[in-house]
Amino acid sequence: MSTKEGVLLLSGGLDSATVLVMAQAEGWTLHGLSFDYGQKQSVELQHAKRLAAHYKLASHTIFNLDLAQFGSSALTDTAIEVPKNRSLQAIGAGIPSTYVPARNTVFLSLALALAESRDLRHLFLGINVLDYSGYPDCRPEFVTAFTALANAATRAADGGAAYQVHAPLIDKTKAQIVVQGLALGLDYGMTRSCYDVVEEGRSCGACDACILRLAAFAEVGEVDPAPYV
Amino acid sequence: MSTKEGVLLLSGGLDSATVLVMAQAEGWTLHGLSFDYGQKQSVELQHAKRLAAHYKLASHTIFNLDLAQFGSSALTDTAIEVPKNRSLQAIGAGIPSTYVPARNTVFLSLALALAESRDLRHLFLGINVLDYSGYPDCRPEFVTAFTALANAATRAADGGAAYQVHAPLIDKTKAQIVVQGLALGLDYGMTRSCYDVVEEGRSCGACDACILRLAAFAEVGEVDPAPYV
Repeated sequence: MSTKEGVLLLSGGLDSATVLVMAQAEGWTLHGLSFDYGQKQSVELQHAKRLAAHYKLASHTIFNLDLAQFGSSALTDTAIEVPKNRSLQAIGAGIPSTYVPARNTVFLSLALALAESRDLRHLFLGINVLDYSGYPDCRPEFVTAFTALANAATRAADGGAAYQVHAPLIDKTKAQIVVQGLALGLDYGMTRSCYDVVEEGRSCGACDACILRLAAFAEVGEVDPAPYV
Repeated sequence: MSTKEGVLLLSGGLDSATVLVMAQAEGWTLHGLSFDYGQKQSVELQHAKRLAAHYKLASHTIFNLDLAQFGSSALTDTAIEVPKNRSLQAIGAGIPSTYVPARNTVFLSLALALAESRDLRHLFLGINVLDYSGYPDCRPEFVTAFTALANAATRAADGGAAYQVHAPLIDKTKAQIVVQGLALGLDYGMTRSCYDVVEEGRSCGACDACILRLAAFAEVGEVDPAPYV
């Protein structure tokens, strides 16, 4: 196995695309893993495909996973509306209805399965501090616990090489992430972050993800090249 | 949420069926979760359905999950043959080719997603000491690490009720498991354990799972009611 080769959770959003260019700048070979999990908007998957092709990932897997059948999230359950036009303060308070139960645990578990199948030991994902305030599976404690699990659950527990989970954005603000990606030449027009059903690939501009993203671009004095309605 | 309600990983095999009758005898209400994950033989899923109906589970979900696309296991990869006619000693030595990378991590992660979606906090699975010698994700350390992850990754980390993972067979031999199930009236003819493609629902009698199962029935002086070729 290569020492600098791993699996990247690639949503097609701003964060995972930034992790992609950061890791490639450090010489990592990446296998992308995306999920068609029943999210209401799947335009992000088209962007994941384009990113994977543009950045010549070693492989790209789109995994079908019907989390929508479990319901209970505004991202997958048509009975729950995506919240709109919330203040940054409101977004930062408590777990929002867009939380998908155990989503990152499920996604990382499948990244682990793919990695172990290919004898890779590095997992990359783009969780960060802004999500921290709301989503429990975006905290440093989650990364630590998952790393311990990976090393107890696989051939690593039998003397194999240990797993590492790389979450290089975890302590960064969205503005810092955007600065980092722009410095590495990332065209954020190739990414989409919107939670809602969007027309012709346009983002709504009003869901939490759009509000956080637009605020980050405004903070660093740049214009978000993604199209909005 | 009910205090005695949880999600059971139900494969249709001997172990999970035994956990089912043990938990029901203790008054638990169970939601079954089975996986159509690309296993070569899927007759076990038919048995999972029958068990769920016979024991009147509160719900039963069969989740599609194409782990076969990752390959590298004799259970899912047609290029790898299921090992046959191995001695009990050989079966107990090292990780066999039937190991599916990170399978129990993925299965438990989805059980966690289902549980959190329904506000349940108890997960049941039938891993046991005989698998311990071979599969890393059947060890007590795995259960401990997954429990810690569950409580770091979900609303439990935000002050919600904590998760418990119940693996009541973990320190039992197959013979002890069979004795327990028979004492609770379980008809093991309703279960299948075979790893291989079987004809008309018959088990091969020669793969590791069949050998361990037949040895257990022999040890307790009973006849396995499941059909063999």
